[in-house]
Amino acid sequence: MPELKFFQPVEKELATVESCLAGNLDSQLHLMNQAAVHLIKAGGKRMRPAFALLAAKLYRNELDEVIPAAVALELIHMATLVHDDVIDDSSIRRGTETVKSAWGNRVSIYAGNYILARALSLISTYQRSDVLDVLAQASMKICEGEIIQMLSCYNVNLGLKNYLRRIERKTALLISVSCELGAMICHAPPHETTALRKYGYYLGMGFQITDDILDIVADEKTLGKPTGSDIRQGVITLPALYALKYDPQREELARLLASPEACVKDTPRIVEIVSGSDGIDYAYAVTQHFAFKAQKQLDLLPDAPVKETLYDLADFVLAREF
Amino acid sequence: MPELKFFQPVEKELATVESCLAGNLDSQLHLMNQAAVHLIKAGGKRMRPAFALLAAKLYRNELDEVIPAAVALELIHMATLVHDDVIDDSSIRRGTETVKSAWGNRVSIYAGNYILARALSLISTYQRSDVLDVLAQASMKICEGEIIQMLSCYNVNLGLKNYLRRIERKTALLISVSCELGAMICHAPPHETTALRKYGYYLGMGFQITDDILDIVADEKTLGKPTGSDIRQGVITLPALYALKYDPQREELARLLASPEACVKDTPRIVEIVSGSDGIDYAYAVTQHFAFKAQKQLDLLPDAPVKETLYDLADFVLAREF
Repeated sequence: MPELKFFQPVEKELATVESCLAGNLDSQLHLMNQAAVHLIKAGGKRMRPAFALLAAKLYRNELDEVIPAAVALELIHMATLVHDDVIDDSSIRRGTETVKSAWGNRVSIYAGNYILARALSLISTYQRSDVLDVLAQASMKICEGEIIQMLSCYNVNLGLKNYLRRIERKTALLISVSCELGAMICHAPPHETTALRKYGYYLGMGFQITDDILDIVADEKTLGKPTGSDIRQGVITLPALYALKYDPQREELARLLASPEACVKDTPRIVEIVSGSDGIDYAYAVTQHFAFKAQKQLDLLPDAPVKETLYDLADFVLAREF
Repeated sequence: MPELKFFQPVEKELATVESCLAGNLDSQLHLMNQAAVHLIKAGGKRMRPAFALLAAKLYRNELDEVIPAAVALELIHMATLVHDDVIDDSSIRRGTETVKSAWGNRVSIYAGNYILARALSLISTYQRSDVLDVLAQASMKICEGEIIQMLSCYNVNLGLKNYLRRIERKTALLISVSCELGAMICHAPPHETTALRKYGYYLGMGFQITDDILDIVADEKTLGKPTGSDIRQGVITLPALYALKYDPQREELARLLASPEACVKDTPRIVEIVSGSDGIDYAYAVTQHFAFKAQKQLDLLPDAPVKETLYDLADFVLAREF
């Protein structure tokens, strides 16, 4: 995921988003407030608000009108994090305690739903059904994606298409929608709105594949979580997919990845096989492909100082060394 | 809850709602479809769509425009049912958390979210932010209510206010919103929209208290579930609340209701104390109070044949014999 320096052109607006987030997670319920404070404190890069704001900055300098959508996008993202807590068994998210570990499954569900409802309430202020519909359609696809991800665990026979569909719905769609909404709120011409949607989509795909590579090759300190955490959960990502098809040790790898026990017990061995395979290079090439496609969309957009930042974000994906 | 005969004036429209429900729960995902088929088959009275349609029928005979909202209301109700399926954290911790039970949780969450997103998509077709906002505000309150309910279990020191807030958010709010949306979509004058919202609210309160009484006094066959199922789950309803305050056996009752074990083991004894107390009569009096208030709101509404049905629905609450 990109570094914060890229968000400098919308730094001021992101500060406003931050204080709005706190206000929107306010509830009469003490318990809900505690959950909200967790989420706010846990921080994060506010990547989705940033993309909505950066996209809008192509059209306007004054971004007040975009703030509610930017806040809503982050709330939707937060709601998915809270809902993920129910299942993931990830007792640590972004370093602070999760809602689940503090309060239990049911609170996670209703807190997540509450946050979604707050997001909706913000979106309703635009009085624009096109904006709502973009979010609703994306939400449906994201839910389907979560289920696909779940059903795909430990399945070594699924191919590239399944993987791309999973990461699309896990990461690319909401970044894509963020860029799209930023443009829509500024009444950008339809073909430019489409270009920004695609830009966000391709960039999001690139981000997620990069993250998936790092999960295998980066050390624990850089990652902020143990290496191979995808593997441990049975999530088969692009480098492993490639290795499963072409690596000389593919049979051993398939045996290990198909077993929930081995995924936990033999993570180091799996990491060794995958990181020693050509899967890393292959995944990097796919990342580059998406980053190039993202940059190409930018050619369709009007010139504005912020366009440079949008190029740089794609360059950042391209420049990663593995 | 009311009998189906009351919904006869909108029978035709309810049939349309039914087929739209099936269409809206359709997904590319096999697993989602299985969950959906389960929900459709499980049936239910489609009470929320019925109220939206009945309210609208005060203003129009042709209700095509109301159908999407009616379907959305039922989808929102279904989503809460699906989310309620999520296993409590404690029961997971006690038992063995198998992969299957974890999947069950995941599917419940994302299937619920998917259904919510479908509802939103339908609502977006109205291009009306007032409609969306009414739903968003109600959703927030309902989520808060679920958490209140959860936190109130086994707590014998909570009073009437807590109980009313719980049932408001459990039942009354969505019925209230159903009536309100029916009126809004027909562009009813604001004071009539408010009257219909209040009508739905009071009636919903009456329904829920009636259900809470029946859970204690009705036999298993009438109920379709074991008598005392609220008690078993530690949910303290109005008759028990009254008995806890005024019954000579209130100390024994408090001891039993405060213990999760006793709520399961000694349900018959608890039912015996509560049903022998004046709590049943008291709760019935409160029900009557709400039913009268509901009928009073109807005085503010235009005359139309369907108004009789709306009166009858409140009469139905009044006429219950316990």
